Amino acid sequence: MASVAEPIQRIANELSRLPGIGMKTAQRLAYHIIAMPADQVKSLAEALVEGRTTVHFCEQCGNYTQNTRCEICENEERHNGQICVVREPRDVAAMERMRDYKGLYHVLNGVLSPMDGIGPDDIRIRELLARLSTEEVDEVILATNPDIEGEATAAYIARLLKPMGVRVTRIAHGVPVGSDLEYADEVTLAKAMEGRQEL
Amino acid sequence: MASVAEPIQRIANELSRLPGIGMKTAQRLAYHIIAMPADQVKSLAEALVEGRTTVHFCEQCGNYTQNTRCEICENEERHNGQICVVREPRDVAAMERMRDYKGLYHVLNGVLSPMDGIGPDDIRIRELLARLSTEEVDEVILATNPDIEGEATAAYIARLLKPMGVRVTRIAHGVPVGSDLEYADEVTLAKAMEGRQEL
Repeated sequence: MASVAEPIQRIANELSRLPGIGMKTAQRLAYHIIAMPADQVKSLAEALVEGRTTVHFCEQCGNYTQNTRCEICENEERHNGQICVVREPRDVAAMERMRDYKGLYHVLNGVLSPMDGIGPDDIRIRELLARLSTEEVDEVILATNPDIEGEATAAYIARLLKPMGVRVTRIAHGVPVGSDLEYADEVTLAKAMEGRQEL
Repeated sequence: MASVAEPIQRIANELSRLPGIGMKTAQRLAYHIIAMPADQVKSLAEALVEGRTTVHFCEQCGNYTQNTRCEICENEERHNGQICVVREPRDVAAMERMRDYKGLYHVLNGVLSPMDGIGPDDIRIRELLARLSTEEVDEVILATNPDIEGEATAAYIARLLKPMGVRVTRIAHGVPVGSDLEYADEVTLAKAMEGRQEL
């Protein structure tokens, strides 16, 4: 569209590369940004560049941090013998929102996906094994997503770890709290039945 | 959430100030940005700051441009005696998408809104009147939004302009093309009936 000033279209193009932001939304945001106070735009731009520059992986668990180790690994109280294995750093944030889990994490930074050529050496499985020999670990909780790749990855890791004498668990599948049975798919319902507990 | 590295949370905070982006989406985007190639993040940040710095209002119509006058005002072929009055620069982009209108624009940069203390002197009405005396104008098309403020603003401008002997029109109200009658509200339906045309 020739009617959109080039710098606005450039902002829209850049924003439309973000997940879930189509060109129409990107253009709406671009117009909003042009009308924002200049210092606010600068602050946003700086946050982006600074964040991308200063954040890297925690050398122990693979979570995002601006330090050598993340806050959770640095917290002695969380070294309780449990390691929760997740796919991505943002899954750590999701688990933490629960405020219930008191152990450590291990971020795989991916899941096994033969279709995409991602094998065991491409995700942080070796690092997980290394932790089992250097840290005191009683239980590894596999919290990869309940999808095909997540299940396959959990099964693969479970097979690797069990011979090492560590307790390996998988998060439960079932109907999400607050949802409606009617909308649950059959596999979820079957898993929910299978995992039923005495009251 | 202490588990989200501070620089990531900062990006999320900044993004959540944008319209339609809640904290959950902002955090998802922030995690995505941290995982993006560094040069892509830099490119996005630069587009934001450069856009905000180089774009300003066209001195004639009030649309956004990086020049003194926007492309439309600079285009001699569009000086056809028509001026379409809209509320915001992004409404110009919306009208242009239609590829049907060949005249000029006038961006009010707001609408009358007594509740918010926005009166005739706060939007570019004076500039519109000035254009009528310096440019050759046959018709002013009022294309403010079909909401309360937009209607009031259109009515106000129409009252001002009519004594000046210029033709003043208002875009038609009706059922959106491709929509379903069932979902149209009563006022829209009434307007659609009122504006019915012989076939």
